[in-house]
Amino acid sequence: MENNAFADIVGKEYKCLDKGFVRLVDVMGDDNSIVQAARVSYGKGTKSLREDRSLIRYLMRHSHTSPFEMVELKFHVKLPIFVARQWIRHRTANVNEYSGRYSEMRDEFYLPEPMQIRSQSSDNKQGRSQDELPKNVVDEILQKMEDLQKNSYSDYLFFLENDLARELARINLPLSTYTEWYWKIDLHNLFHFLKLRLDEHAQYEIRVYAETIADILKQILPLSYEAFEDYELDTANFNKNELKVLREIIDVEKFNSIDLSEYGFSKSEGKEFKEKFEKFIIRNKE
Amino acid sequence: MENNAFADIVGKEYKCLDKGFVRLVDVMGDDNSIVQAARVSYGKGTKSLREDRSLIRYLMRHSHTSPFEMVELKFHVKLPIFVARQWIRHRTANVNEYSGRYSEMRDEFYLPEPMQIRSQSSDNKQGRSQDELPKNVVDEILQKMEDLQKNSYSDYLFFLENDLARELARINLPLSTYTEWYWKIDLHNLFHFLKLRLDEHAQYEIRVYAETIADILKQILPLSYEAFEDYELDTANFNKNELKVLREIIDVEKFNSIDLSEYGFSKSEGKEFKEKFEKFIIRNKE
Amino acid sequence: MENNAFADIVGKEYKCLDKGFVRLVDVMGDDNSIVQAARVSYGKGTKSLREDRSLIRYLMRHSHTSPFEMVELKFHVKLPIFVARQWIRHRTANVNEYSGRYSEMRDEFYLPEPMQIRSQSSDNKQGRSQDELPKNVVDEILQKMEDLQKNSYSDYLFFLENDLARELARINLPLSTYTEWYWKIDLHNLFHFLKLRLDEHAQYEIRVYAETIADILKQILPLSYEAFEDYELDTANFNKNELKVLREIIDVEKFNSIDLSEYGFSKSEGKEFKEKFEKFIIRNKE
Amino acid sequence: MENNAFADIVGKEYKCLDKGFVRLVDVMGDDNSIVQAARVSYGKGTKSLREDRSLIRYLMRHSHTSPFEMVELKFHVKLPIFVARQWIRHRTANVNEYSGRYSEMRDEFYLPEPMQIRSQSSDNKQGRSQDELPKNVVDEILQKMEDLQKNSYSDYLFFLENDLARELARINLPLSTYTEWYWKIDLHNLFHFLKLRLDEHAQYEIRVYAETIADILKQILPLSYEAFEDYELDTANFNKNELKVLREIIDVEKFNSIDLSEYGFSKSEGKEFKEKFEKFIIRNKE
Repeated sequence: MENNAFADIVGKEYKCLDKGFVRLVDVMGDDNSIVQAARVSYGKGTKSLREDRSLIRYLMRHSHTSPFEMVELKFHVKLPIFVARQWIRHRTANVNEYSGRYSEMRDEFYLPEPMQIRSQSSDNKQGRSQDELPKNVVDEILQKMEDLQKNSYSDYLFFLENDLARELARINLPLSTYTEWYWKIDLHNLFHFLKLRLDEHAQYEIRVYAETIADILKQILPLSYEAFEDYELDTANFNKNELKVLREIIDVEKFNSIDLSEYGFSKSEGKEFKEKFEKFIIRNKE
Repeated sequence: MENNAFADIVGKEYKCLDKGFVRLVDVMGDDNSIVQAARVSYGKGTKSLREDRSLIRYLMRHSHTSPFEMVELKFHVKLPIFVARQWIRHRTANVNEYSGRYSEMRDEFYLPEPMQIRSQSSDNKQGRSQDELPKNVVDEILQKMEDLQKNSYSDYLFFLENDLARELARINLPLSTYTEWYWKIDLHNLFHFLKLRLDEHAQYEIRVYAETIADILKQILPLSYEAFEDYELDTANFNKNELKVLREIIDVEKFNSIDLSEYGFSKSEGKEFKEKFEKFIIRNKE
Repeated sequence: MENNAFADIVGKEYKCLDKGFVRLVDVMGDDNSIVQAARVSYGKGTKSLREDRSLIRYLMRHSHTSPFEMVELKFHVKLPIFVARQWIRHRTANVNEYSGRYSEMRDEFYLPEPMQIRSQSSDNKQGRSQDELPKNVVDEILQKMEDLQKNSYSDYLFFLENDLARELARINLPLSTYTEWYWKIDLHNLFHFLKLRLDEHAQYEIRVYAETIADILKQILPLSYEAFEDYELDTANFNKNELKVLREIIDVEKFNSIDLSEYGFSKSEGKEFKEKFEKFIIRNKE
Repeated sequence: MENNAFADIVGKEYKCLDKGFVRLVDVMGDDNSIVQAARVSYGKGTKSLREDRSLIRYLMRHSHTSPFEMVELKFHVKLPIFVARQWIRHRTANVNEYSGRYSEMRDEFYLPEPMQIRSQSSDNKQGRSQDELPKNVVDEILQKMEDLQKNSYSDYLFFLENDLARELARINLPLSTYTEWYWKIDLHNLFHFLKLRLDEHAQYEIRVYAETIADILKQILPLSYEAFEDYELDTANFNKNELKVLREIIDVEKFNSIDLSEYGFSKSEGKEFKEKFEKFIIRNKE
């Protein structure tokens, strides 16, 4: 908890969707802890890596993931159950969820904003398209959603009033019901979560949470997040066949004439790019 | 797939609750694989352990869990979503669940049997009591449950007809909706799952599945399941304070006069019991 | 980092064996974080559990393990490689180890104290007995150990001087060579580690580290460690056959006449003991 | 165990290094099991994906990893301890290792071939270069290695003869000593292992094992391995800065004129490539 960014952020509720939030409860470590852990591994081997920033970037670039596991973050999250069901698939994390067996469920449901009421995507089997539905259809859908949420909660209250066990009374609540949990995860696994959940194919409702967490990380772990962005998030992976095509349409001479430092490459980044270029583009070009 | 028990069981649907099932899809290994793996670890050290059964019982008794991890089981399970939410908390397993983003949810919901419509337990905060509710209340609760399930599904169909994206159309389906998944786990972790989910404090609806899986294991892994039952399931753990009391009310002389072989103890089991008795009962008795 | 115990302990090197140590680098959370996480899960259900201590004890007693996962600890450990090989088998942890590929191995080896030079146990296939060997044998063994350690390190230096790659030069160093690592684990999994490694069947050399870690936990997580001790460590588990015998030698009337509060039982602990006694001792007594 | 490839391969010892081996002990599932598991997840959503091969390639390309977790493989491996120490860092696997506490260690050590006795790499801090050392130096190094291995084993025998406990007698054996284990892992995690250990930066001695396992997979899981090769192994990842450079040297018009089917692209692969090209190359080109 060395710097001010932490103090401003820890404990603050960042709103997500209509009634949810993300709240950073606690952090173990910061950018510096990653450097510290890496220096244990590499001992004298890291002597020449003078700066923290370049060491962190080197680790990320070369998939040396274990130092990033040395930072741990704990969040308090309030989220609809259907989002929770996607989220929990990330198994390398610790969870304490609100229990509908012990406690009464609250009267809180996710109702999408009208602009999210979109049609099925035709090219993405799992997602919604960019197209909104006609306004009267949107209104009718939202009205039906709200009515069912009300009815299911009024049933729930009826069940409890008649002394039905809580663990049974809740079984007809909808997947849009809000739940909450404490969620604890290390930074490496959190980056993996973000890589999948910031993706445009992720469902909008979980993406909102991923973006909020990304914003928090940018502030409390600026060097790590920057490296994650540069080397994991904003990257393009080209496969065997695609590389064959790239070889045809790349101007190698132009590449050789480029001064990489003008593009923001450090010396070692430039050297690695040249090796990669040599290996994937030139070497296989007959 | 060495014996007949396997052939009879693999692929068979064992019904659970009103519309669910458990189906064993595949198994890697059997009781013998556990022995085989243990013999790699203990090498010559297991020479003297002549029988498979006593080796398996020795491993279980001494919490040598890794050989049990060498057996892997894959199940196909159909279950209500609120049960799936408890189940998924067991993280050391592989899961492929039916996706409501890719595919249409089906018109199938869990409706409890009338005798399960019980009141909240007064001494167990998380469970239901043994008491059924009055018949007219039960009837009204079940009627309300069924009505809401129908309404939510008719809304769902309305949403799809109006081309709402599947990933949104489903968010108001109730937690009683059936889902299905492939679930793969090793035997050690499955025993841990069973220990927690066969327990009387587990919710009835997941206990039904645990009991079905236990029945399957008894048939295909008879020696391991027997050892699990004897040394994990049907055991009592006494803590520090409780042991103090036991010391006061136990007749040590009577213990010394007992012939343990008459109680089914093997020689080494008897020796270990005597050591445990000596350590926890006698040694601390002043 | 709320209290003084933390400030005194974090960063301090606790010596282990002849040249090793355990050093607590960082902690996320304390006893109070466990309570806080549990209250998220149980919501109103925990209202009646007024005290933190009784809630922590309740969680431990009932194997509600997830709140204990909400505390995370990071250690810096220096240890012989053969101890590291046992330690790493605990998979639910994060590790950054000193790398002999990147860096030169140091001239540090574990040499047992003379009193640890003991004979093979006859009844415990995996351990040493209580018997020391004759002094002249001990001396000869230790002399041979020290000589080989010296020779292997002098070979290592020779290899490096002749420019052999570090990753190959090290392959003949003995398992007694010291390594070091950062090791990060949550409290639930750390308790599991301690349960196995504090056990008298664990090898002495790893037990020394487990005891050091236990001492640290006692100071920084006093309520949790006390609960672990009472309900996990100092307990006796009796299996099916053993319970049959206990039923014969236990005086039930005497049990019924005992005032459990005199033995330090809280009201709910007493109630649970009576239920357990009823279930395992009385109910099955014909 | 449906096909002949399995029958020929299961149980066969594939030699690795001078005295090690890899032996496939058992497999749960094949390419078809992956398809089967995916079809549970995607339900009707996969109707249009007619062929198994294209479904497997689609899953791999889109990082839908869970169906690959539904195949499980068990290997028996004999390997030097320093290789085992790298290998065990892959935590999502089950292991039963030969125990030097229970059993006598055998007189078997890894001695590199002369051509592997290479100098430290100057540009790769963790590896060896392509340069062999002078023949007389190689001979001297290998002689010293062999002598130390002999001496350490003769010490070991001396210790055992003098009844030193096995768990202590072994602590001075070198890291080049062979051990063996059963190792069980799912296919997704095995691919991750291979991705890291087939890499040219992996130490040669573990790469030999990775290559042997890759050869086995090619035969028993041909579709999955092909997809892994095309979409994971033989791919190039370009980061933010590198993409900026690519944008300068790529001829977009030439790209548009290319008939991708001539390069072996299926229709959907071609569509995805064009989208990727649009997103990373064209869209950001001002």
